[in-house]
Amino acid sequence: MRKIYLDHAATTPLDARVLEVMLPYLREVFGNPSSLHDWGDEPRDALETARGQVASLIGAQAQEIIFTGNATEANNFAIKGLALAQQDKGKHILVSAVEHFSVLNAAKTMGKLGFEVGQVPVDKHGLVNPEEVKRRLRQDTILVSVMHANAEIGTIEPIAEIARVVKETGAVFHTDAAASTGTIPIKVTDLGVDALTIAANQFYGPKGVGALWVRRGVRIMPLLDGGIQEGGRRAGTEDVAAIVGFGKAAELAQEEMSAHLEHLVPLRDYLIQGVSSRIEHFILTGHPSGRLPGHASFCIEFIEGEAMLMLLNAQGVAASSGSSCTSRALKASHVLTAIGLPPEIAQGSLVFTLGRSTSREDIDYVLKELPPVVERLRQMSPLFAKFVKAQKGGK
Amino acid sequence: MRKIYLDHAATTPLDARVLEVMLPYLREVFGNPSSLHDWGDEPRDALETARGQVASLIGAQAQEIIFTGNATEANNFAIKGLALAQQDKGKHILVSAVEHFSVLNAAKTMGKLGFEVGQVPVDKHGLVNPEEVKRRLRQDTILVSVMHANAEIGTIEPIAEIARVVKETGAVFHTDAAASTGTIPIKVTDLGVDALTIAANQFYGPKGVGALWVRRGVRIMPLLDGGIQEGGRRAGTEDVAAIVGFGKAAELAQEEMSAHLEHLVPLRDYLIQGVSSRIEHFILTGHPSGRLPGHASFCIEFIEGEAMLMLLNAQGVAASSGSSCTSRALKASHVLTAIGLPPEIAQGSLVFTLGRSTSREDIDYVLKELPPVVERLRQMSPLFAKFVKAQKGGK
Repeated sequence: MRKIYLDHAATTPLDARVLEVMLPYLREVFGNPSSLHDWGDEPRDALETARGQVASLIGAQAQEIIFTGNATEANNFAIKGLALAQQDKGKHILVSAVEHFSVLNAAKTMGKLGFEVGQVPVDKHGLVNPEEVKRRLRQDTILVSVMHANAEIGTIEPIAEIARVVKETGAVFHTDAAASTGTIPIKVTDLGVDALTIAANQFYGPKGVGALWVRRGVRIMPLLDGGIQEGGRRAGTEDVAAIVGFGKAAELAQEEMSAHLEHLVPLRDYLIQGVSSRIEHFILTGHPSGRLPGHASFCIEFIEGEAMLMLLNAQGVAASSGSSCTSRALKASHVLTAIGLPPEIAQGSLVFTLGRSTSREDIDYVLKELPPVVERLRQMSPLFAKFVKAQKGGK
Repeated sequence: MRKIYLDHAATTPLDARVLEVMLPYLREVFGNPSSLHDWGDEPRDALETARGQVASLIGAQAQEIIFTGNATEANNFAIKGLALAQQDKGKHILVSAVEHFSVLNAAKTMGKLGFEVGQVPVDKHGLVNPEEVKRRLRQDTILVSVMHANAEIGTIEPIAEIARVVKETGAVFHTDAAASTGTIPIKVTDLGVDALTIAANQFYGPKGVGALWVRRGVRIMPLLDGGIQEGGRRAGTEDVAAIVGFGKAAELAQEEMSAHLEHLVPLRDYLIQGVSSRIEHFILTGHPSGRLPGHASFCIEFIEGEAMLMLLNAQGVAASSGSSCTSRALKASHVLTAIGLPPEIAQGSLVFTLGRSTSREDIDYVLKELPPVVERLRQMSPLFAKFVKAQKGGK
């Protein structure tokens, strides 16, 4: 059976060229970068090379990159560390309603520690309106966090516009760019943000490494206290091999970005077009055009997304129904709720995220397999039976 | 030139057998363990196998193991997460004076968040006296943290005795066993602790992964908020390859522990004996017998440790003068200060940490190279000149 991985938002495979540069650091070049003897030299140099590569990908300065254990740590570091460092100016934090749980729950924790957390709503496409941010900014707002792109519905947020609004105040502006960095062009100077989260495993780098970019001069309190690694901002022995891989993945992403965009966008549109023409009672979620290049997300009415995933999986196709960080929690997605979908529609969520290796044949296969899956599930759905009956009654 | 790595406390090399089991997870088995489709199955199973292997190493239950990004994260998680979860009972935290900076500085952060932090002193061998803990325990003490073994001076603490004292109160007892797990036998049930920190890279596992063991029923607040990974206690996509390697390293450490102990202890004693018989004005730091099997630490008077490291390095020998997490900070060690050494002696700190590959020939080489290094540095030392003059004057 054909095996088709269309869940690149959950994680991408590690690029073989990335693994290649990691291997020496998993073998003979094993030293601790903090060591004063020869064994520390090559690992230390490798860290700095990687720091430059990651910085270059987002148009930043190398010393502004702080390596972390993953994007979740970077988001926790940003929310908690930036809020604690600015608390002399106020205790109000603003986040959008569609943030990843690592931002939302980190903010919730700050709420328990005496901070006040406000939420900015989104429109039906998942867009944050800068005016809505402006309306909620207060004298004591110290931190605003709005994601760069949403992994569940693909929507890309107007970060530069929001930044202009936030920068009229003294608040620090963080954006979680885990879903977009390495996939679409990002320059922190163009965005006008103060801090930005990156995940290596979203662009063919290793798991277990991420970064928080923090603009020079912006104060942040460490989340991991201890030694003096990462300029005293993130303690702990560095995962040299993973960081080296992160750097290489960043370099490759930068070099090959236009080629991947040219590859992904038409395939995504072909998939969206194909699903919409083959399946009735279908809703595209997220923005129709301003969305991640490989991202196709839908709600298919009268169906449970989980059941759809199981049947697609049986046909060899990997898809998702939302964030992989909560997929096993089987709760209604807060993102779909935020864009105004009622639970009975939100439950039919289906997300395909395409990657570098995705081919037109893969999409054709999905377009062939999906309609009978939907059909089969609808035959078993009491909701659908009720709907059909109502339709007939209406005639 | 001979190259001899005697800085295993900074980090160990990755065992080739460990890398072997990691590689599939860096290649084809790349899925996210949280995914509901087939790609998530093998990574998820692998996590659970590793969890069992790590648990077995310390005589714990698999579900009590929480994987983290390193031991520093585990220590931060323990200090902050355990304190925050017990704060309804009090706000007093006790730590020993010789803890790693990831414990000391995490406690300091809690001090800024309204907790009160007390320190327990150590004796001249670096031992915490359980009576000293008892004297400092208060009605409102909620957390005590004393390390299992010290990486700078090798001393193994009487954790079971301290646990008995702590357990007479309601406080939670954490021990940082990063320096000892995988090297000497540890059973959490024998120790009587509630939480224990492990570092994979201290026993030939990968960097970038650690664990906090938390006894079932003990409440802890997450340090990394977000998704529902690790039972909701540590969010973020799991670094599957590193965790798999951690598990394998734990399995190997358990199987081969007695063999390594038989190998390391005589070599360590041969080194200590050799240095003490060849070098005058020498102080063994740490406990003379109750110390880590591969750990030999000294203060050599009238000499700067850093200079000694440089000259040894030039002879191909890697050693350290203290914790690698602070080695580049070039400050006087808080551990040597705590055991009562004055700064002028503490500055001559030299730590050799032996490993599985260390041979008797390696030690012979060090014993041959070290005395001329010491001699050469003493010739340049104004302090030594003063001492010699005083000696002569006294005669």
